[in-house]
Amino acid sequence: MSNTVISTRVRLARNLKDYPFPCKLGEQGREQIINSVRKAITESHSAIADDFDFIRMSELDPRQSVSLVEKRLCSPEFISETQGRALLLSKDESLSIMINEEDHIRLQVIKRGLALDEAYDTADKLDTLLDENLSFAYDEKLGYLTQCPTNLGTGMRASVMLHLPALEKSRAISRIAGNLSKLGLTIRGAHGEGTEPQGALYQLSNQVTLGISEKAAVENLKNITLQLVAQEEQARERLCGSIEVQDTISRSLGILRYAKVMEHEEALKLLSNVRLGVESGQITDITCEQIDSLMTAVEPATLSVTLQKNLSPHERDIERAKLIQNKLKISQQ
Amino acid sequence: MSNTVISTRVRLARNLKDYPFPCKLGEQGREQIINSVRKAITESHSAIADDFDFIRMSELDPRQSVSLVEKRLCSPEFISETQGRALLLSKDESLSIMINEEDHIRLQVIKRGLALDEAYDTADKLDTLLDENLSFAYDEKLGYLTQCPTNLGTGMRASVMLHLPALEKSRAISRIAGNLSKLGLTIRGAHGEGTEPQGALYQLSNQVTLGISEKAAVENLKNITLQLVAQEEQARERLCGSIEVQDTISRSLGILRYAKVMEHEEALKLLSNVRLGVESGQITDITCEQIDSLMTAVEPATLSVTLQKNLSPHERDIERAKLIQNKLKISQQ
Repeated sequence: MSNTVISTRVRLARNLKDYPFPCKLGEQGREQIINSVRKAITESHSAIADDFDFIRMSELDPRQSVSLVEKRLCSPEFISETQGRALLLSKDESLSIMINEEDHIRLQVIKRGLALDEAYDTADKLDTLLDENLSFAYDEKLGYLTQCPTNLGTGMRASVMLHLPALEKSRAISRIAGNLSKLGLTIRGAHGEGTEPQGALYQLSNQVTLGISEKAAVENLKNITLQLVAQEEQARERLCGSIEVQDTISRSLGILRYAKVMEHEEALKLLSNVRLGVESGQITDITCEQIDSLMTAVEPATLSVTLQKNLSPHERDIERAKLIQNKLKISQQ
Repeated sequence: MSNTVISTRVRLARNLKDYPFPCKLGEQGREQIINSVRKAITESHSAIADDFDFIRMSELDPRQSVSLVEKRLCSPEFISETQGRALLLSKDESLSIMINEEDHIRLQVIKRGLALDEAYDTADKLDTLLDENLSFAYDEKLGYLTQCPTNLGTGMRASVMLHLPALEKSRAISRIAGNLSKLGLTIRGAHGEGTEPQGALYQLSNQVTLGISEKAAVENLKNITLQLVAQEEQARERLCGSIEVQDTISRSLGILRYAKVMEHEEALKLLSNVRLGVESGQITDITCEQIDSLMTAVEPATLSVTLQKNLSPHERDIERAKLIQNKLKISQQ
C-alpha cells in the first residue's frame, strides 16, 4: 500500500437528549454538558478512555488553540469562541472529543494511512462508551439528531487525507472533483473550504449521512479512495520519468536542507515535492512519515507552541527553516 | 589578501618589422609569421618556452575553439576566422601567444589572485625571448607599433578579474565605473563588452598605453584594484549580516548540490552567491579555488570538450548539474 493516503479520520456528531443544541444553551447548560461528557469518559474505567486529557478551551492561549486546529484536533469554529467549550484529547492525539461545538459531542478518531475500518471501529467503541453513560438524542426514523441537517442520520463523517501531487500537476483534480460529488463524496484542499490546496494535500469525505449505514458509507469511501490512489500512481509514473520533475524534486530537498528563512506556504510546497520524490523512489534517505510530521510541525502556531515562544512572522520563518534543516539532516552513517 | 581578485592578466601586442598587419597579409605572409614566432619559441631552449603546445586554429573543432575563449586563452575575434592563425599555449595554460590576431603577436600571462608584478615580469621575459629572435616594429617616439592606435606605445593591457557581488548588489558599480574611466581604467562584465555581467565577475583594465611606462601602468592598476577590493569588503560586511542574504547564499549552495538540470546563467549566479558565502566565512567546506575552476568548467563549450561529447543544450544542462554536484560533493570525513 502506497503512502498516498496520509491519514484517515472518522468523526461522529452526537447530542444529549433533553438539552437544546449548544447555540441555544446558556452558560450553565453548557457546563452541565461538559461535566456529563467528562464524567462519562473519566469515570468509565475503560481502557480506551484511560489517557484522555481534559482541556478547557478558555484556559488555552491563542497559539495553543490555533495549533490544535493546525493538527486537525479541533475545528476553526470551535476555537473562535472558547467560553463553555472543552476538549477531551488522548495522549497520542488520535482520539478527541469536542464538547459544545456545533453539536454537544463531536468525537474524532485519526489513524495513519488508509484505515477506515479500524478508525470506524474505534469511533464506534468510544461512541458505545458514551452511550452507556449518556442519553443521546435519537429518532427511530431519522437516526441521530444533529444541529445541522446535513449531519442527521449516522452523524458520521469519514475522510481520508490524500497527497495528490501528480493529479494536481496534471490538472486532473478539478475534473475528478466534479465526478466525486455525484457519488456523494467531496474532495477539497486539506486546509479547509475556500482555501487554495497547499502541499497537494486533499481531503476526501463522505457527504451523505441520511439513508445509508455507517458501514456502507465507509465502504463507499474506501473504494473511491483506492481508485483515486490508483489514478494518482499512474499519473506519477508518467510525471516522474521527466528529468525536469526529478530536478524540481531534488532542488526542493536542497532548498529545504539549506534555507535559512522559509515561509509556511513555501515549506508545504517543497515538502510536497520531496514526498513525491520519496514515493517515486528518487529520494531514499527520508521517509513519508518524516515529511508528514513536518507538514504539521511547520504550521505557524504549532511551531510557536513547540518552541514555547511568541514569535514574529519573520522569526517564525527563521525557526521554521531551522526545524526543517534539523529534521531533514543527512544521517551520518 | 582576500580572494576578491580572482586572476591577473598581462597582455602584450607586438608586430614584426617588414610585414604588414595581419589584416593586410596574405596566406603566405601569415604562414611566415606563424613559422617565425613558433621557431622563436620552440628553438629558444629557454626554460620558459619549454612546454608550449603549437595549435593551428583551423585544426580545432568549433567546441574546442570556443572553449579556449571561455577559458580566456583566445579572443572571440581570434576564433571567428581560423585560417592563417595559430596559438602557442603552455601546458598549464598560464602563457599563451595568439599569432595573427589583430596584431602579429598577442602574448598573454595569467596568474591566480592579484599578481600584477609577477605577471608583468613573466610577460616581459617572454617578450625578451621573442625580441631576441624576431625584429619588432618599434618607433623611438611612439613605442611599439600596433594595428589599433589604442594599443600604440607599450602595447600592454593589464587587467584583473574581480568578484564584486556586494558592490553589484548595492548598485555601486555603475558609479564606480564612471569614476574609473577618469583614471584611465575600464571596468566591465567579465564576459566581454556589451554583455550583462554574469556571476558578479568584472574585469578591470588599463586603457592608456601611450605616454606611460609599463611599470607605471601596472602600479596604477594595482592601487585602484586595492581600493576597489577594500570597497567591496566594506559592502560585504554590511550585506552579509542580513539573514536574507545568508539565506540566499545557503539556498544557492543547496540548489547547486541538488539540481538535476542547470543552465549556464543560473550556475554562474549561484556560484557567485556561494563564493560570497565562502569569502564571508558562512560556508566553510568549499574553497574559492573550487568555485573559480567551476565557473570556467560550466561554460558550454568547455563542458562539451571536457566530456568529449557533442551535447544538445538540454543534455549540456544535465551534464552541468552532474559536474557541479560532483565537484561540490560534501566530503566524507
